[in-house]
Amino acid sequence: MPSIFTKIINRELPAYIVAEDTQHIAILDIFPVKEGHTLVIPKKEVDYLFDLPPDDVAALFRFAQKVARAIESEIPCRRIGVAVVGMEVPHAHVHLIPINAVTDLDFTHKLSISEKRMKEIHQAIKNKFNQLYGNSNSMEN
Amino acid sequence: MPSIFTKIINRELPAYIVAEDTQHIAILDIFPVKEGHTLVIPKKEVDYLFDLPPDDVAALFRFAQKVARAIESEIPCRRIGVAVVGMEVPHAHVHLIPINAVTDLDFTHKLSISEKRMKEIHQAIKNKFNQLYGNSNSMEN
Repeated sequence: MPSIFTKIINRELPAYIVAEDTQHIAILDIFPVKEGHTLVIPKKEVDYLFDLPPDDVAALFRFAQKVARAIESEIPCRRIGVAVVGMEVPHAHVHLIPINAVTDLDFTHKLSISEKRMKEIHQAIKNKFNQLYGNSNSMEN
Repeated sequence: MPSIFTKIINRELPAYIVAEDTQHIAILDIFPVKEGHTLVIPKKEVDYLFDLPPDDVAALFRFAQKVARAIESEIPCRRIGVAVVGMEVPHAHVHLIPINAVTDLDFTHKLSISEKRMKEIHQAIKNKFNQLYGNSNSMEN
């Protein structure tokens, strides 16, 4: 049974895809704690981050750094916070969250963002990623 | 003015060092949210994680994976959670936290752990890291 993220990677489920390369995909979290809250996901479906081979862990965070650069260019924030919890979906994923204070990395408070605003954020981050890293890094243009 | 972490790296301040290589150090957090809560720190003093060169970001998480393996061998938990917030100390660091539930990654609830217990945890994780990765990976034996 493929994970919800594998279904998104296979285009069997819709998502706000902001960046993609051969090994990874980045999508807006639909239960965001901040505007611009993004999930960076390895296409290899493993439950636990640290069960990925070391090369894959390294590649995942290299890709996450690029996505973070695109987010922080578009969403006003002091920096991009990082969290990996992994109790909800059994497919490893890195949360990238624009934060201004320690307390902003708080998964107990979800925002309600309109579809219109989600689309704006999606387009802004996606365009910035493509501008920074070129379409060769994105399979979703 | 060197950061508190640079002072620890330079042995100008004491710390519970559990692992070290040429580029990184790992220490127990003295304000832990869980037993075994560890900070993985690049020796290069940059404030913001994503200001590190991409190779350094990749190397940091490769090292963090090794430290996570040592922690999860010694501290009962479902997995090691990861967080990078970076609002308190202006020197990038990765929190590795043994967790059993999403709510365990909660920086608002700090534990009080006795010095005796901290020393036990320190020794256990340090020994496990050396056993798994050999003394060549650790400058602190």
